[in-house]
Amino acid sequence: MENKEFVKDLTKMEDDFAKWYTDIVLKSELVDYAPIKGFMVIRPYGYALWENIQHVLDTKFKELGHKNTYFPCLIPESLLNKEKEHVEGFAPEVAWVTHGGEKELEERLCVRPTSETIICTMYAKWLHSYRDLPFKYNQWANVVRWEKTTRPFLRTAEFLWQEGHTIHATAEEAMEETLQMHKVYADFCKDYLAIPVIMGQKSEKEKFAGAEATYTIEAMMHDGKALQSGTSHYFGNHFAKAFDIKFQNKEGKLEYAYQTSWGMTTRIIGGIIMTHGDNRGLKLPPNIAPIQVVIVPIAQQKEGVLEKVGELKSELSKKFSVELDDRKEVTPGFKFNYWELRGVPVRVEIGPKDIENNQCIVFRRDTLEKETVSLDKLEERIAELMVEIQNNMLESAKENLKNRTFTAHDFEEYKKLFAENEGFAKIMWCGDRACEDKLKEENSTTIRCIPFEEDKFQECCSICGKKAKHMVYAARQY
Amino acid sequence: MENKEFVKDLTKMEDDFAKWYTDIVLKSELVDYAPIKGFMVIRPYGYALWENIQHVLDTKFKELGHKNTYFPCLIPESLLNKEKEHVEGFAPEVAWVTHGGEKELEERLCVRPTSETIICTMYAKWLHSYRDLPFKYNQWANVVRWEKTTRPFLRTAEFLWQEGHTIHATAEEAMEETLQMHKVYADFCKDYLAIPVIMGQKSEKEKFAGAEATYTIEAMMHDGKALQSGTSHYFGNHFAKAFDIKFQNKEGKLEYAYQTSWGMTTRIIGGIIMTHGDNRGLKLPPNIAPIQVVIVPIAQQKEGVLEKVGELKSELSKKFSVELDDRKEVTPGFKFNYWELRGVPVRVEIGPKDIENNQCIVFRRDTLEKETVSLDKLEERIAELMVEIQNNMLESAKENLKNRTFTAHDFEEYKKLFAENEGFAKIMWCGDRACEDKLKEENSTTIRCIPFEEDKFQECCSICGKKAKHMVYAARQY
Repeated sequence: MENKEFVKDLTKMEDDFAKWYTDIVLKSELVDYAPIKGFMVIRPYGYALWENIQHVLDTKFKELGHKNTYFPCLIPESLLNKEKEHVEGFAPEVAWVTHGGEKELEERLCVRPTSETIICTMYAKWLHSYRDLPFKYNQWANVVRWEKTTRPFLRTAEFLWQEGHTIHATAEEAMEETLQMHKVYADFCKDYLAIPVIMGQKSEKEKFAGAEATYTIEAMMHDGKALQSGTSHYFGNHFAKAFDIKFQNKEGKLEYAYQTSWGMTTRIIGGIIMTHGDNRGLKLPPNIAPIQVVIVPIAQQKEGVLEKVGELKSELSKKFSVELDDRKEVTPGFKFNYWELRGVPVRVEIGPKDIENNQCIVFRRDTLEKETVSLDKLEERIAELMVEIQNNMLESAKENLKNRTFTAHDFEEYKKLFAENEGFAKIMWCGDRACEDKLKEENSTTIRCIPFEEDKFQECCSICGKKAKHMVYAARQY
Repeated sequence: MENKEFVKDLTKMEDDFAKWYTDIVLKSELVDYAPIKGFMVIRPYGYALWENIQHVLDTKFKELGHKNTYFPCLIPESLLNKEKEHVEGFAPEVAWVTHGGEKELEERLCVRPTSETIICTMYAKWLHSYRDLPFKYNQWANVVRWEKTTRPFLRTAEFLWQEGHTIHATAEEAMEETLQMHKVYADFCKDYLAIPVIMGQKSEKEKFAGAEATYTIEAMMHDGKALQSGTSHYFGNHFAKAFDIKFQNKEGKLEYAYQTSWGMTTRIIGGIIMTHGDNRGLKLPPNIAPIQVVIVPIAQQKEGVLEKVGELKSELSKKFSVELDDRKEVTPGFKFNYWELRGVPVRVEIGPKDIENNQCIVFRRDTLEKETVSLDKLEERIAELMVEIQNNMLESAKENLKNRTFTAHDFEEYKKLFAENEGFAKIMWCGDRACEDKLKEENSTTIRCIPFEEDKFQECCSICGKKAKHMVYAARQY
């Protein structure tokens, strides 16, 4: 009951998007700032959302034959140093443990920023024969990266994620795995989070430290900035060589294994907020919402009202995740705002007159529309609404993605575009690092990905005018 | 396929219990040593067991109104220092982060050994009114304690656990919560893990650093040593005062909140192993086993065998967790040993002749008995066996607990007892720290708990002969 006066205090997104975001995540009680710079506390409502995400992904991973494991949270410096590109990418942003109890350690340990190095060490120990392959392991864990500028969910010194790590007998099989998990992430975003994404490959500059290829799903936020939402890496056998992960093949010869890793993090919660939220607060897709339906009694002190809403709650709870808000100390109007801020997809309002008429009011969070529904049809109507709202939210997000996607034929047009807009710029690219760097220097934009579906709208590079290799998406990003 | 010759290599428990334990945990592939001293890697089979434990406990916690959260893994030294007894208990065994990226930190951060201090800080911020209470939060997390002597699961520098942290308006309510969670743990051990436990309170010396009272469940291992298996702490308002956790009561006055915490860890997996395992390996209770039934085809190269076991697998999988071992490169005999080592409760063997006779052989891991079962009755029989095996394992464990429980009337008898046996000694205790210390000095035994059910068999203290206050259980412990 801490935030009694929330809605009128919410910053409007058109006034200050960053402040709107912070207001929303704090006031909806998804998260709070921890008393350590850059760290967050995930509160029950935010964690329930993360649990739903975990549940869907974990079920899918297991269906595809992955098994969960747990590897140590601390990694010796010497292990981190084994793969050159990897250590260069991560060493500047790790937290170092130097003392255990009262003793200084002989070797520093970093709090894992990611687990390739420790997992590779064990894979090298466990792998003997082609018959052992593939190893398809995943872990749900916390990781720490010492970020300078942080924002709840989007960029925090510690975050939660899953990291899948697999090894395979052939390059083809490892690539197949990489692309399969890439698709799992894209489908998950679309089907559960109502977030349409662009699927594609990272440029050499933007790929994961140590990977041969990184595949990404890129989402478009309300303000036109891109959010990298899940990545899948193909390592070839770089790490296998650095860590000596070998197996005896069918012919009895020793070969290096081929490797992948893939991850999705609590950052995706920021993506849900910035894709769907509005000036009233969160707007959660029914397929992932911790609470799908909230029941608010009207004139609850009147005879029979609390009894009726109690019945309704137990009836609807068989099919949906339902909350009954029967607090006495606040008004129905307060409760409406409270649950709208928290993005609950459907609200049921019911008072003495409604009960008399065997009906209730159903409010949907996505369109803010109200309708009167017979109590006999309520369950059926809510089931329909869960589908309608989910679809409608996906369509709205697709619309934003479409409206925020532009084409830049040359660099003047590109600069003008980002002077006036935020969004995805489709550009043709020669493939040179120099052109990529220019996007960063002059516009703080980056190549988000080389999409699988390229719309090659011209022959020449939109930046330098030379022959183009790819159509890419560029944007400012979170 | 790494361990081809496991069973004959297993140390016998009567020869060397500690080595038997290590053999079992490693060869059954529950766990492996990490390349950092004192840390473990939890392998898929071990993690699946932990996931089952998590699932049962988490469901129960939520039924009782607890919500999950996530708090930072790093805690500033100044926060750890706020509660005097707490910091004295934990500071000697924490890992210290001193550098973030390339910069030395202004204040050291410890990797959480437990989260009271960081959670209290947030509770102080969130709590305003009596209406907000209780806060009943839990988190599933990793913690680090810099232990000198470690053993997989039982004592490791990092372990996984859940830590529940609640605050309440009154002392009574907080005590009720503490005792409720104490009972949740005891019931869980009995009903799922087939481990009978002694419920009771820790002595002042043995209680949690900073707690007013600690309740423990103590289990008896095969070798007669005790395992502390889950603890629930009542804090009174000590931490509330140290962290300023206050609320406005109904009369508008400020009051300190009353607090509890309670936890169960991956150590309990060690308890399952040492309660039930035998010289063939693990023996897992059906109610918690990741694989309840393994199907081993006999003469699988013969026509129709693989087809039939495939059918059986999909049929049985509707009710049980089933694994089909249709590996070609190893013999059925190898597979029998392999799955016995892994403790799968029921094995189904079926070959061409069995198929002809519409039957199979069913082997139960607990008694090592085989029976012939008609395929028409197989599902029904396995369902019965799940119950029978679970009950039988609990009864065996109770029997061991009973046989390992002794009574010591005086200190001579006590010393003789522990010179010849391992087990629980029931002793009368005057309550003095001096007597408690004597148990430790002369026999390396400790008071495990003051049980709820005291069998006051004499008036005088078994150690000093003065007037006794309590009957307590003493033992050597893990």
